[in-house]
Amino acid sequence: MTGRTARRRVTRITLEPGQVSERADLLAAEEPLGIRIGGQAVTLTMRTPGDDVDLTAGFLVSEGIVTKPGDIESIRVCTGEQCGHDHDADDTAGLGNIADVVLRPGLELRPELRRNFMTTSACGVCGKTSIAELSVTHPYDLFADAVRVTPALLAALPDALRDAQRVFDRTGGLHAAGLFTADGKLLAVREDVGRHNAVDKVVGWALQAGRLPLSGCVLLVSGRASFELVQKAVLAGIPVLAAVSAPSSLAAELAAETGLTLVGFLRGGSMNVYAGAGRISA
Amino acid sequence: MTGRTARRRVTRITLEPGQVSERADLLAAEEPLGIRIGGQAVTLTMRTPGDDVDLTAGFLVSEGIVTKPGDIESIRVCTGEQCGHDHDADDTAGLGNIADVVLRPGLELRPELRRNFMTTSACGVCGKTSIAELSVTHPYDLFADAVRVTPALLAALPDALRDAQRVFDRTGGLHAAGLFTADGKLLAVREDVGRHNAVDKVVGWALQAGRLPLSGCVLLVSGRASFELVQKAVLAGIPVLAAVSAPSSLAAELAAETGLTLVGFLRGGSMNVYAGAGRISA
Repeated sequence: MTGRTARRRVTRITLEPGQVSERADLLAAEEPLGIRIGGQAVTLTMRTPGDDVDLTAGFLVSEGIVTKPGDIESIRVCTGEQCGHDHDADDTAGLGNIADVVLRPGLELRPELRRNFMTTSACGVCGKTSIAELSVTHPYDLFADAVRVTPALLAALPDALRDAQRVFDRTGGLHAAGLFTADGKLLAVREDVGRHNAVDKVVGWALQAGRLPLSGCVLLVSGRASFELVQKAVLAGIPVLAAVSAPSSLAAELAAETGLTLVGFLRGGSMNVYAGAGRISA
Repeated sequence: MTGRTARRRVTRITLEPGQVSERADLLAAEEPLGIRIGGQAVTLTMRTPGDDVDLTAGFLVSEGIVTKPGDIESIRVCTGEQCGHDHDADDTAGLGNIADVVLRPGLELRPELRRNFMTTSACGVCGKTSIAELSVTHPYDLFADAVRVTPALLAALPDALRDAQRVFDRTGGLHAAGLFTADGKLLAVREDVGRHNAVDKVVGWALQAGRLPLSGCVLLVSGRASFELVQKAVLAGIPVLAAVSAPSSLAAELAAETGLTLVGFLRGGSMNVYAGAGRISA
């Protein structure tokens, strides 16, 4: 099964009037994707199938492994049954898919990454066992990004994102991430049951399109803004991250430290700016 | 900093009328917590401080390491600066706290757990590198749980949970998990920036209170129901999991396989039942 949605029989119950009915319902698909680098299993993520190459590429960016398209020699996504890879028998029990990454020659995983990637990309801190490892080296200087956006432009983005979402309205179960230019043009939108995956998919698309760093861009997420989402934006060189809901304290702190403009509660014609307010002016 | 909220200056912008104002805003606190078992770092989770012992105990249940209070000899949560533990200097950089777990003598981590815990508990599949590892042995048989709940009782739970939430209404940034008896009595409520952590906190409270398995109980979560949340409920012996929002396809599948009753879209006097509908009857 590789669709973005799955059909399922559900029992619908309403109190007023008291009714019980059976019907078919469409659910957001969630399935595991194993990611291997050079044949070594490094992560397992629960994700919504589709855009798996984008997701894998974005994972590599978010973990600081790659910064340009040439860093990746190939990403091959295969189902357990059909591919000729050396999957363990256990890995091919029909549960999910595997993405095989080959990095460019000479690009080695740092030893601590090799040790710590026993993890999932559903959350950005996965793979870290010590607090010190949370501090990732950021390849881009966001303070140098002189882009400006207007409040009116930001306020229009949630509707644009919603219009572009393909699956959410049918299942109610997906997070979305949308990448916009500073004048509001939608560059890419991706969906996933995990909000971190949705962002990884967008960033992975951008990497492959040769667009990193994403200078002058605005990333909008449908939910809340966590530490991990801020970190992913910074690692992709995105100067403005906007969230429809609340940020966490650490998200705001990291944004301020790295020069990211962080907007929260972007809804109904208003917003809160938690860091980098200088980029927003009418 | 160990509070559940953090105060921060924000720039509030409204379009109609066009206004920009500075004010103080309350954010949900998010900080890393490192968990060590027998001195070995096994996981790092981004969590909202508070109930850290519950969170740690619940993590141990959710990973299948412990099933009863006696399995844990001690859980000691200490800040890097104040405790006398052998933290690495890097771990005590003021970024977060550490929970030190001592298991009862004879309770060894399985080798594959020891290897794979390089992870965070923000998501239930963390620490798994192969798809086969997703299948956890469930210690309880939910099919044998004969509890029944009425639709009216279920419909009343979201308001009860919201009433019990301490922080959400002030920050808008927290997930909640509430544990109820089959006649609607609230046993425990916990909040966190991560929905998985909120559930771990509730389960950890129950473990320490000697209440596992949680037969006859209903767990309500404020957001969506993922595979991981279903797995956590099953591992705690909870027969009914209800979510205010949508479940994923894999959540519904796992619920059906394990005998869990899974309710989604529990709001406004109606609900969808995705598995185990036999437990719900007027």
